[in-house]
Amino acid sequence: MAKYLIRAMVLPMTGSGDFYEQGEIAIEEGKIISVGEKGSAPEGFIPDRTLTLIDDVIMPGLINTHTHAAMTMLRGYADDMPLMPWLEEKVWPFEAKMKAEDMYWGSALALCEMIRSGTTTMADMYMEEQETAKAVLEAGTRASLSRGMTGFDPQAASKALKENIELFTNYDNAGQGRIKVLFGPHAPYTCPGEFLQMVKRQADSLGAGIHIHLAETKAELAMIKEKYGKTPVKWLEEQGIFGGHVIAAHCVHLTEEDMEILKKYKVAVAHNPESNMKLNSGTAPIPELLQKGIAVGIGTDGTSSNNDLDMFSEMRSASFQQKLVGSCEDLKAYDVLDMATNGGAKVTGFKNIGKLVPGYKADLISVDFSQPHFYPRFSIPSHLVYCAKGSDVRTVMVDGKLLMEERKLLTLDERKICLEVEKRAKRIASEV
Amino acid sequence: MAKYLIRAMVLPMTGSGDFYEQGEIAIEEGKIISVGEKGSAPEGFIPDRTLTLIDDVIMPGLINTHTHAAMTMLRGYADDMPLMPWLEEKVWPFEAKMKAEDMYWGSALALCEMIRSGTTTMADMYMEEQETAKAVLEAGTRASLSRGMTGFDPQAASKALKENIELFTNYDNAGQGRIKVLFGPHAPYTCPGEFLQMVKRQADSLGAGIHIHLAETKAELAMIKEKYGKTPVKWLEEQGIFGGHVIAAHCVHLTEEDMEILKKYKVAVAHNPESNMKLNSGTAPIPELLQKGIAVGIGTDGTSSNNDLDMFSEMRSASFQQKLVGSCEDLKAYDVLDMATNGGAKVTGFKNIGKLVPGYKADLISVDFSQPHFYPRFSIPSHLVYCAKGSDVRTVMVDGKLLMEERKLLTLDERKICLEVEKRAKRIASEV
Repeated sequence: MAKYLIRAMVLPMTGSGDFYEQGEIAIEEGKIISVGEKGSAPEGFIPDRTLTLIDDVIMPGLINTHTHAAMTMLRGYADDMPLMPWLEEKVWPFEAKMKAEDMYWGSALALCEMIRSGTTTMADMYMEEQETAKAVLEAGTRASLSRGMTGFDPQAASKALKENIELFTNYDNAGQGRIKVLFGPHAPYTCPGEFLQMVKRQADSLGAGIHIHLAETKAELAMIKEKYGKTPVKWLEEQGIFGGHVIAAHCVHLTEEDMEILKKYKVAVAHNPESNMKLNSGTAPIPELLQKGIAVGIGTDGTSSNNDLDMFSEMRSASFQQKLVGSCEDLKAYDVLDMATNGGAKVTGFKNIGKLVPGYKADLISVDFSQPHFYPRFSIPSHLVYCAKGSDVRTVMVDGKLLMEERKLLTLDERKICLEVEKRAKRIASEV
Repeated sequence: MAKYLIRAMVLPMTGSGDFYEQGEIAIEEGKIISVGEKGSAPEGFIPDRTLTLIDDVIMPGLINTHTHAAMTMLRGYADDMPLMPWLEEKVWPFEAKMKAEDMYWGSALALCEMIRSGTTTMADMYMEEQETAKAVLEAGTRASLSRGMTGFDPQAASKALKENIELFTNYDNAGQGRIKVLFGPHAPYTCPGEFLQMVKRQADSLGAGIHIHLAETKAELAMIKEKYGKTPVKWLEEQGIFGGHVIAAHCVHLTEEDMEILKKYKVAVAHNPESNMKLNSGTAPIPELLQKGIAVGIGTDGTSSNNDLDMFSEMRSASFQQKLVGSCEDLKAYDVLDMATNGGAKVTGFKNIGKLVPGYKADLISVDFSQPHFYPRFSIPSHLVYCAKGSDVRTVMVDGKLLMEERKLLTLDERKICLEVEKRAKRIASEV
């Protein structure tokens, strides 16, 4: 593996004051061996390549903690509709026509967009997730993958669980540890208690975590209240789902008791501000969750409810949404960056990512600060959250391997993928 | 002036179904002479240049209806603070140290960013506005300019009014009509009634319009209520400010009666969703205003409360914010595009911009749809609002003159401007 020396401004995400204006990062065997000001690389370190990016800010790769990558296939297919007709008349009929191979191409397109916009790790949940795994291995990114499972049709539920187990067997820890497989029971309102318990036993027996949608909409709250007389969080606790590694996506509608439950079981929250806005779901109590010490990461959700996978835009929206409903002081720029990096590392459970320190994996991106919207340079964190766009990312590295350089993708054939998705999406739409 | 033939996908913004997949626009003497499918240019039309942009969507240039361009100088200087300390301890002391020439460079930087992100027209309000006028003339964009005036210090008020008159005398209709000068009394809470009346008389005598902040925050409502016992809109009506061309920026907090007043006097509203979120101002009742037939455009506000000038991001936020507080069906993609183009034309009062039809000015942009986040191509309006970034703009033309081609600025020296702003901003900060 190539040894790299990168010269750039460096925001290591190790604390809000930490910044190297003329910084230097040394990388060997896929790991960071030193981070500091120019000249800080170990004596005798001879890089195979030196990347000189003096107008760029290097930071940890962004971590998208909740998405459905293959749903790029539905981007722009239906928008601006009330939730239930949108799902029942548009999304589900379309998904019913998608084949395994479509999932591969949709995931590949998502990964092109993610790499372009600085996301190095995602937590994904969908059907035919082995196809997403293949795309991730080719792309070179890091991913937590789970087979989305609904549980009310026993036959479909049993098939889905079998597929999730196969996914685990075939892909957990694949790509030198770049893939982690979780179990993906869809949500409290789509899975009966017995199914959740069965999934949890299975996950526990394999030492795997759980990825689930939770407390996303008021409709879900009402449904669970009517059925079980309690909140979705309380009900999931009673099903024994918590304890162990759990990614709970959305968590928009929480009582004080719910938050205490999440805290008690160290449940990790994936916050999806843009999807929550676009689908009129509401505003998650992020400052309160952070205050309690609960791990919170940021996610884009799928592209049918966003409609992009740009984590820079998502960070900005996270802050703006919270400021709108709370106060100007909520989710300050650095705190948002921290959620998208260190928070994302905690949520996805990958070790040694989310900050730039010796011994950590070389998962990093460079952001091109030479452009007008980054001047004057009063505050790098402020600019990264309030001004940066995904398209400002110039360089992407995962595990010490370059995935993008000078805005050129190195592992995926972008043009081919775009055209293949176009063809397949139109075919599916014509079949619906 | 060069004659152009542009071949591209064309979204003329003449109605929600109108789109030319293999479109063609002919331009002569700064005006559009034909728009349609390939082959629709008049027989015998021989262009000086043909631009072939088959992977791009051509649409009208975006219109930013409320900003303070020179405030780029403060970008990232202070964020995440409560409104009053932010203004009193940060923004105002910084502004007090800004010199006329700083306003020129700050405006030039704003114009670099605006052209890059597809904005061809802005409505601006600030001090030393003649400097902004100079920058606009060089940049080649279109602008409505007003001298921001506060009225409680009689000497300062009188000086400001004099400057606004001079601005009108020197720059109204300059650049072959690219500049329109308005009068800029800052807001109901910063101007006494007599001053507003004086400004209005002056504006009327010159046939000029008014650009004013209105009903932006709850604090303003409380202040005006305490002082005058009524809403800011009602009080402005009584001062005789309405009637004639008025741009009212923000209009977040409106009663039903307020909206009827705005409708009665044909007051045009500049909606600033991102600033309203970041500063915790609230959510303007945009669907209600549109329902009443009130002209509404979109604006970014200044970069100290946004912090960019990207109208694509602003369109997206406009829709998301409204969906969050209202419903998924509020501000559909095409409606948002309509606000940012046709709405902006009405708000700024420029004739023959905002759509692509024969006889209209050739103010247009091309958006590079070859990128992964624009696939599959189910809906061009949806992609423009929910996926596009300012950086996707490839070509910008105003009055038939190219201001950007292949993402290269043709009228401004971007690098010089960035570095000059950096130097000046740091100097000002050191003097505060």
